[in-house]
Amino acid sequence: MTDATGGPPEPARTATPPDRRPGGRTARVRTQVLEAVRAELGEHGYEGLTMEGVAARAGVHRTTVYRRWEDVGGLLADVLDAAGEDDWEPADTGSLRGDLTALNDEIQESLVVRPSIPQALMAASFRSARAADAQQRLWEDRYARCEVIVERAVERGELPSHTDARRLLIASTAPLYHQLVLLRTAPDPRMSAQAATTTTLAAAAGAFDRPAAV
Amino acid sequence: MTDATGGPPEPARTATPPDRRPGGRTARVRTQVLEAVRAELGEHGYEGLTMEGVAARAGVHRTTVYRRWEDVGGLLADVLDAAGEDDWEPADTGSLRGDLTALNDEIQESLVVRPSIPQALMAASFRSARAADAQQRLWEDRYARCEVIVERAVERGELPSHTDARRLLIASTAPLYHQLVLLRTAPDPRMSAQAATTTTLAAAAGAFDRPAAV
Repeated sequence: MTDATGGPPEPARTATPPDRRPGGRTARVRTQVLEAVRAELGEHGYEGLTMEGVAARAGVHRTTVYRRWEDVGGLLADVLDAAGEDDWEPADTGSLRGDLTALNDEIQESLVVRPSIPQALMAASFRSARAADAQQRLWEDRYARCEVIVERAVERGELPSHTDARRLLIASTAPLYHQLVLLRTAPDPRMSAQAATTTTLAAAAGAFDRPAAV
Repeated sequence: MTDATGGPPEPARTATPPDRRPGGRTARVRTQVLEAVRAELGEHGYEGLTMEGVAARAGVHRTTVYRRWEDVGGLLADVLDAAGEDDWEPADTGSLRGDLTALNDEIQESLVVRPSIPQALMAASFRSARAADAQQRLWEDRYARCEVIVERAVERGELPSHTDARRLLIASTAPLYHQLVLLRTAPDPRMSAQAATTTTLAAAAGAFDRPAAV
């Protein structure tokens, strides 16, 4: 692995650009490096995350890692950006309550697994402004993709068309993040469905209605 | 300030115990040190928090700080424990929705002020197990004190007696913490009342009912 991905030492850099096949080697190096960041983060947390440790684990020359990601914040930001490059979409269960429960189940699972990379990234985003920005982009993207849950419920007639989708989604997911990340309460298998049910009942009572656009 | 609070250097410790008047000097030193921790945390965050910086700011000898708090985690834990030693109780506005809104207003205010010590302590609790334990004790204490909001609503007949108070309080407060601490969305003055209203509507629809005890 090391010979294929180990970049040349610093002095040779300008003479032999290492990224001459962007679609191949560049992408492969990124995959290896980001996988190494996640693995190091899972094992040692932010504290133990170093450019050298990531380079060694990825089998990539450290100068390559420094050149491309600059610092630990750059590595974290790229892990977060890469997380948004998938084709994830929320499950379609046929009902608002079902969709919100399935979403919460996914969130709960990602937060209680040990090590939890999402938890480690949230913790790291308090340490690095670049990671914080990337984390914010990822949240924004995820919540935007979840708005289809509300759109489907509107189409089914479960919700009025002037529903504030974002506010509904925050109400449904916030109790999980609050309890599992900040309050550090023990995971409760009922938590996902309870938050989804609460939100569905509140929605039916008009909690997320907003004035219809003129 | 320094002469009154500067502990003797390490070698003199056993010969002259510095805490010989526990109710006076000990309490005063603690007040000064914890105030210094909050000030340093507000200015520099966890990154810039050092035993030496706290001792210097408090005008207390560093050996005293090391002896009594051991490390930065010990300082943070004591700041959190001290925060729970007040006589805070939630405002009594006469309605469930009003009480929850007032609580959320307080939470929002504490999270958006800059520097926000609660935000800094939450961030720090990802770094120190001692701080995390103390943060958890503080959350537990605060939510327990807030249960009176639900008790009053039950007494007024606004809620059934078998209401899950903790779950209701989490539902009402979680959106603020989620948005202001994790999502880092811009503060919105409507957020407090919206989350309180959502929770009140959900409660009226039975979202927080639990089977009555036999």
